[in-house]
Amino acid sequence: MKVLITGIDGYTGWPLALHLLGRGHDVAGIDNFATRRRVREVGSWSATPIPSFARRQEAVRSVLGKSISFHRGDVTRFEFVRKVVETERPDAIVHLGEQRSAPYSMIDVHHAVRTQTENIAGTINLLYAMRDVAPDCHLVKMGTMGEYGTPNVDIPEGFFEVNYRGRSDPNLPFPRQAGSWYHWSKVHDSGNVMFATKVFRLRATDVMQGVVYGVRTPEMTDAILQTRFDFDNVWGTALNRFVVQAILGLPITPYGRGGQTRGYIALEDSMQSLRLSVEQPVAPGEYRVLNQFDEAYSVNQLAELTRKVALEFGYEATIEHVPNPRVEQEEHYYHPLHDKLAAMGYRRTRELEEVLRELFRSLSKHRRRLKAKQAAVFPSVEWRRSAAAPRATAAPSAPPPGTDGMTDRPAIREP
Amino acid sequence: MKVLITGIDGYTGWPLALHLLGRGHDVAGIDNFATRRRVREVGSWSATPIPSFARRQEAVRSVLGKSISFHRGDVTRFEFVRKVVETERPDAIVHLGEQRSAPYSMIDVHHAVRTQTENIAGTINLLYAMRDVAPDCHLVKMGTMGEYGTPNVDIPEGFFEVNYRGRSDPNLPFPRQAGSWYHWSKVHDSGNVMFATKVFRLRATDVMQGVVYGVRTPEMTDAILQTRFDFDNVWGTALNRFVVQAILGLPITPYGRGGQTRGYIALEDSMQSLRLSVEQPVAPGEYRVLNQFDEAYSVNQLAELTRKVALEFGYEATIEHVPNPRVEQEEHYYHPLHDKLAAMGYRRTRELEEVLRELFRSLSKHRRRLKAKQAAVFPSVEWRRSAAAPRATAAPSAPPPGTDGMTDRPAIREP
Repeated sequence: MKVLITGIDGYTGWPLALHLLGRGHDVAGIDNFATRRRVREVGSWSATPIPSFARRQEAVRSVLGKSISFHRGDVTRFEFVRKVVETERPDAIVHLGEQRSAPYSMIDVHHAVRTQTENIAGTINLLYAMRDVAPDCHLVKMGTMGEYGTPNVDIPEGFFEVNYRGRSDPNLPFPRQAGSWYHWSKVHDSGNVMFATKVFRLRATDVMQGVVYGVRTPEMTDAILQTRFDFDNVWGTALNRFVVQAILGLPITPYGRGGQTRGYIALEDSMQSLRLSVEQPVAPGEYRVLNQFDEAYSVNQLAELTRKVALEFGYEATIEHVPNPRVEQEEHYYHPLHDKLAAMGYRRTRELEEVLRELFRSLSKHRRRLKAKQAAVFPSVEWRRSAAAPRATAAPSAPPPGTDGMTDRPAIREP
Repeated sequence: MKVLITGIDGYTGWPLALHLLGRGHDVAGIDNFATRRRVREVGSWSATPIPSFARRQEAVRSVLGKSISFHRGDVTRFEFVRKVVETERPDAIVHLGEQRSAPYSMIDVHHAVRTQTENIAGTINLLYAMRDVAPDCHLVKMGTMGEYGTPNVDIPEGFFEVNYRGRSDPNLPFPRQAGSWYHWSKVHDSGNVMFATKVFRLRATDVMQGVVYGVRTPEMTDAILQTRFDFDNVWGTALNRFVVQAILGLPITPYGRGGQTRGYIALEDSMQSLRLSVEQPVAPGEYRVLNQFDEAYSVNQLAELTRKVALEFGYEATIEHVPNPRVEQEEHYYHPLHDKLAAMGYRRTRELEEVLRELFRSLSKHRRRLKAKQAAVFPSVEWRRSAAAPRATAAPSAPPPGTDGMTDRPAIREP
């Protein structure tokens, strides 16, 4: 199959390209390198040094003997999107080309508006491009488990039967209660994609992805093929930050009481899921929602497990709860269903604990890069009153920014 | 109270200003005159001639002895919004300043993206402006009953108790299933406002408004105070088009089978509802959803009633069903609840049939203006395949556009 990946330069976009190539698919990609720029904007960089996209393409040629067709540009520009879709004629588009950070969207009004308008415009542009020049193409759109929030009932895969005041509807969208402008942008996208499948008779799979962990996939046979790994408070997940805190000898800092529970999936298994979604398209007019995660963990469980694995590597870490910069329930029921991918042939291959070991091994090599940006690990964005500057008070034992005498110049020249 | 109305130049914005002034409130307003421009864009104009906003302000002074503070500008520009809110320090903001036409949003990808990004940006800007300079202000935001779609169960006012797989949550947002990019933009706004009340502790009322009918309110004591009335297929409601078709001797044209049922409310009663929402604000952090309509009618019922009332005025109209340009259920269950406004003191004062008579009386005076744009009454925007040009085939007995030799120059000089 021919697969077009928007956001191909990103954390999941790049491993997905490698995985699909490895499975014999053709891969084309779009990126505007916004994540590289925006991680710099908040004073951080990828823990793993990542080469320019041109060098990535070259490496794919030299190491794997394959090629990727690449289009630099912005999915918010319709003419660009239409032209790429027309040129590539993909069987599937995996749409990862969105602003993906909740804290980034909460920085201020401009980041809020930009996150929502860019994410929405990109998705609508893709839907119209498909309608116009590739009506048979299957859209695999990245959503998030965070769209559902934390209701006091089980969470179905997108739709459920509603019984209300003596009547029933067999198939209504499950209520969404997102927790940031970013998460809401994904909710908005979901509504828009659902609508477009209906009026334009397009095919779409909406992936409610859990938090992804890990940095390696089997296709990364050479260091030059590795993907990015973000550990700062804006772009990194809680788990990423905990591992880096342990490596740097800093306390592991769960936000608030730490009972916040989410679904998690390993990077490698997420690639498997996305590939299955691509290889098993839905019918025209069909809108399929998949809950894509393997296991739910609380923030406290992640902190404890990180501390335990860190010890195996000689890192003795303490756990210090810090005030929660987010507005979220810190103790709650959490039980989302996730049966559809299994029915499509999905089998979990990785366990969190073993991936954590892999993370410690991989990241220990980049200690200097982590140390250089360690101030960025601590919370800088408040949900209730978004602040532009890092909150020094929330960072126990955190050195002030810039004490390493490092500049913000990235180690890797970027395109 | 001091009330800031965004979209004060519009169909409901202007009567609301007059109504609030009449009740002793202070009124400030924002508008960018987008509706005037965009109605021209589709080749139409208001059936009622409306003066420039400067002349409206003047009329308010001379006829009513009151004044309106006006700020020309666009709510998508944050600095403008913040400055107006800071200057006016309103107790309430009634946010009507959005693109409000479903067909307009369906014209093409650019109209789709613009509708959603503008509507969303304007609302987020207002929320941040409130947070920054008027945290105690109460936002009354215009949504639409169309957000809910047509589920097979009763529709609550925003939230309902969910029982699912043996557990229950007492208060989840009711599923939304909108039918156009415009309607989805209102869904997105609702999610965003709900979120902002939670994280910024703002006060907000989200008004799920039914279709509004009528052109007169008691405060329009002089012709110069009248509001706009749109009758073209993009900006006018089905009822508006039916009345104008009857006056022009054209067939009344329900879309499809005509079983599409929606909630309706008279303009005057809508003003009463909005005033009550303003005068009875919610607490900080509270998000109140009100279903604002009085009675549900099917399109066929509207067509029949229009034909009946038309006869009283000597207009003999036939009813001819045309292919439905929209994608919607044409026969369905429809029973939304609407008790909260009654509990706030709302009492219905107008009946559809009597307002229809008023409409025929008012619009008969403007027959020449209707005739000049009569081609615009027939469908020009297809949901499944948005078309820029009018679909001549869908307009039985409709004369081709421009046969009156009229130009698009508006009769009223606009700001």
